[in-house]
Amino acid sequence: MTTPSFGVPYAPPHPGAPYPATGAWNTSQSAGHRQFHTFAIDRPFSLDGGAALRDVTIAFETWGTLNADASNAVLVCHAWTGDSHVAGPAGEGHPTPGWWEGVIGPGGFIDTNELFVVCANVLGGCQGSTGPASPHPVDGKPYGLRFPVITIRDMVRAQVHLADHLGVRRWRSVIGGSMGGMQALEWAVTYPERVASVVPIATCIESSAQQIAWGAIGRRALQMDPAWNGGAYYDAAPDEGPWRGLAVARMIAQVTFRTDNAFNERFGRDLSEANIHDDGLHFFDRFEVERYLDHHGDKLVRRFDANSYLFIGKAMDLHDVGRSRGGATNAMKRITAPVLTIGIDSDILYPAYQQQTLHGLVSGKDPRTRYVEISSPEGHDAFLIDSHAVGREITSFLSQV
Amino acid sequence: MTTPSFGVPYAPPHPGAPYPATGAWNTSQSAGHRQFHTFAIDRPFSLDGGAALRDVTIAFETWGTLNADASNAVLVCHAWTGDSHVAGPAGEGHPTPGWWEGVIGPGGFIDTNELFVVCANVLGGCQGSTGPASPHPVDGKPYGLRFPVITIRDMVRAQVHLADHLGVRRWRSVIGGSMGGMQALEWAVTYPERVASVVPIATCIESSAQQIAWGAIGRRALQMDPAWNGGAYYDAAPDEGPWRGLAVARMIAQVTFRTDNAFNERFGRDLSEANIHDDGLHFFDRFEVERYLDHHGDKLVRRFDANSYLFIGKAMDLHDVGRSRGGATNAMKRITAPVLTIGIDSDILYPAYQQQTLHGLVSGKDPRTRYVEISSPEGHDAFLIDSHAVGREITSFLSQV
Repeated sequence: MTTPSFGVPYAPPHPGAPYPATGAWNTSQSAGHRQFHTFAIDRPFSLDGGAALRDVTIAFETWGTLNADASNAVLVCHAWTGDSHVAGPAGEGHPTPGWWEGVIGPGGFIDTNELFVVCANVLGGCQGSTGPASPHPVDGKPYGLRFPVITIRDMVRAQVHLADHLGVRRWRSVIGGSMGGMQALEWAVTYPERVASVVPIATCIESSAQQIAWGAIGRRALQMDPAWNGGAYYDAAPDEGPWRGLAVARMIAQVTFRTDNAFNERFGRDLSEANIHDDGLHFFDRFEVERYLDHHGDKLVRRFDANSYLFIGKAMDLHDVGRSRGGATNAMKRITAPVLTIGIDSDILYPAYQQQTLHGLVSGKDPRTRYVEISSPEGHDAFLIDSHAVGREITSFLSQV
Repeated sequence: MTTPSFGVPYAPPHPGAPYPATGAWNTSQSAGHRQFHTFAIDRPFSLDGGAALRDVTIAFETWGTLNADASNAVLVCHAWTGDSHVAGPAGEGHPTPGWWEGVIGPGGFIDTNELFVVCANVLGGCQGSTGPASPHPVDGKPYGLRFPVITIRDMVRAQVHLADHLGVRRWRSVIGGSMGGMQALEWAVTYPERVASVVPIATCIESSAQQIAWGAIGRRALQMDPAWNGGAYYDAAPDEGPWRGLAVARMIAQVTFRTDNAFNERFGRDLSEANIHDDGLHFFDRFEVERYLDHHGDKLVRRFDANSYLFIGKAMDLHDVGRSRGGATNAMKRITAPVLTIGIDSDILYPAYQQQTLHGLVSGKDPRTRYVEISSPEGHDAFLIDSHAVGREITSFLSQV
């Protein structure tokens, strides 16, 4: 079997056939290697929302080596604006360094000397997987708003094809924070026999009204940018895309990712250096916190597709493990694997009560199931910023499963 | 002396001259009467930010009757999108019913049988007072972005002219929530001899980085609306103003005014009735919480000037009782009056620690000074929604001062 590459049609292996541990996936123990995978090109990929996609591509990266019985595979799931590049320097196809640098690697918290780690860019994304910026099979032009509504379950079902392709019948663990945690939960509920454990971090069993509100407002802001142009901006000059809109949407999210405290400590009421003058107050003068938000908006704009931001955001709003399953309580009963749920005490977007609720629905089934609350001043982003605190809990849990 | 009316030049009375209690201010004990006051028309009104305004008009309303020695006057200060209409039905100049209905009136928590209650539309506002929608004296066209940056201190100094005009040397109390509380604090710090007491509610001594962030993001969103047109939209047709932008800005604020809990209780994950169909998920389908936010955005758009929203928001960001006064601790030492500080335990925008900090800087000076924390699930808006809980504390405090 050859290593799949972008654009090469691929037939899933017979279910249960182990993926040969040739090591071909892995050019370096530390940096991993980006792979592209195409599946189900000959039939449509049916979606939760009623539509279907053709020619679905899923980009993924791997670290470490899959063992002979394919029992050492760990799936890491990324969050909203993440991609498959969990660790390693920036490069082609992954414009930023790894978003969980230090957590994954040889001797790391998720030890790639032992484990085979996989991360896929989600369906709807813009770093190699099929999303709104991908060519529509009918006319070859970007989907834009013709892209169908996708859900977290769709993302997971795409990953199932990837698992089949890799020959992984059962993940040692499925791990993720925020939207990554939603995917971990959907794995455990939809495919209980295919996960030996799951680690949902700073996430929820269903998006709350407040989470929906923040998501919806960000989308409204983005869509107000005239350069968004109803999602048809792919022909725009590089400086004429919906960058202002995407930046404002990102700013809203960025505040919810952090805390009042963290902002006070870091910025207080300092004025931005670029705006100090001696002739009084000006309407467009910025405080330092505004400069920080501008910076984050600007950073995202350079690497992320605005329509992907919209569709993935909508998928998060629609997240509800109980939908069409008789409610969340009922759905969570399907989980048989041990669950390590991690909350963050200062998280204002996914408050710790959500993880406590999650844990309450799975506790008592397996002695290894537990809830850990990380104490951090960083808010939701602590799952990225305080990655060592999170990593230590994962190491301890993985040693038991 | 005649009742001042809109556009009539007015010279402030000699300081200390009591305003004759003719009762002419008061057409009804329950409904009050809107008055317009023009001051300093013959000289510029210098602003905190270095600029100056000419032809400043301040609109205000009163309830009850000023007594002979002008010792029963209470100033109520309104919040961001409020106006002078604290109580009474909607009418000309006040498009919504009173925003603190039930708190003020004969026999009410602030009893107009005893007290003479005044509320002025803030400088920068759009319900009668001079703001960005007012005609620029040079060309008679709306100021728009030519309006100067104003601060809470400017709002208060405009109210000082009003107090002089009314013959009120010393307010029995200055009371306000949110931005109204900022004004109450600035009164107490800047004019300690002119306030017998102050009641700052759900407010702060200085805006935090997070508060600034929310304000700044809302302004960015509003300015992104092409119909805002750099603030020059006053000639636009009624359906072509910057309503989308103002609505999105308002939505951001509205989420911070409430709580996760209140939203969950009220909306959960319900879908908006208007968007139920049987052919799957659609990108523009709304959840109920989105419909609620749309409704709030829409309501504001019908009654509030977008540029006023921007300039008043900026004034709040700039709020800092310590600015040019050697810091907040030093500034707060100037307060001599008893202070009733009211916090709300679920407030995510002005968290209770801010009011506790405020109280910490004034406690120990006067035995009547105290801090009360209202327990409410409603968040910041509890000062409006749970007005009876707030009113009871005010009644008790006013009986002692």
